[in-house]
Amino acid sequence: MHKSRLGGFIIDCQHSDLDEAASFWASALGLTAQQSPAPEESKYRALSGKTGGLHIEVQTVEHPSRVHLDIETDNIEAEVGRLEKLGARRVGKVSSWVVMQAPTGQRFCVVRAESRQFAEQANRWD
Amino acid sequence: MHKSRLGGFIIDCQHSDLDEAASFWASALGLTAQQSPAPEESKYRALSGKTGGLHIEVQTVEHPSRVHLDIETDNIEAEVGRLEKLGARRVGKVSSWVVMQAPTGQRFCVVRAESRQFAEQANRWD
Repeated sequence: MHKSRLGGFIIDCQHSDLDEAASFWASALGLTAQQSPAPEESKYRALSGKTGGLHIEVQTVEHPSRVHLDIETDNIEAEVGRLEKLGARRVGKVSSWVVMQAPTGQRFCVVRAESRQFAEQANRWD
Repeated sequence: MHKSRLGGFIIDCQHSDLDEAASFWASALGLTAQQSPAPEESKYRALSGKTGGLHIEVQTVEHPSRVHLDIETDNIEAEVGRLEKLGARRVGKVSSWVVMQAPTGQRFCVVRAESRQFAEQANRWD
């Protein structure tokens, strides 16, 4: 048995200035851009506020701008296997997470569960 | 004074079979795909369940697959004006909503507020 849920989404910006990108999206969505706690995370800015328990981050990327979903889980390999059976394809591993591609074409990530809502809201897959 | 908030997101699928696309995303995210209430909405399937109060829909589209955010508001023109001042650009109007492009490149929509959470959670812009 493992568990997963929609963890949130990442706003991928092909944009040289992360602070500027995060500032736009924070203002647009009525959220607050957080400073990164660690220098190695300097490609990311979390947006906090009324996000419905979802994790929202702005990231600078090299590829064209997009929005991608994150699925959070307590067992990444089991969740990747479940999603492969649904028709998704494993694209690659980055740090602790796995990048996948949906049968409908969108890239998304399977990440380690870190939200407070996970224990209560995640779906059980037996 | 007007109000707005992140209303949710739409999973745009360049895919001929809407039911198949909605079925994948419902299973992947642990949500339930709803049948459309009206034939004219047959490009859309809402996903219901633990969505954190966000509206999530799967849509079939002609352009490449992506995920786009919706900002919901009680005053579309005022909200579009606010977002233009932040650097977004108006792309066009579709039915009751306005398509915009962020300065970081992503398309997103400004839509009429319909969520139960709007009154309580929306941001006030004076």
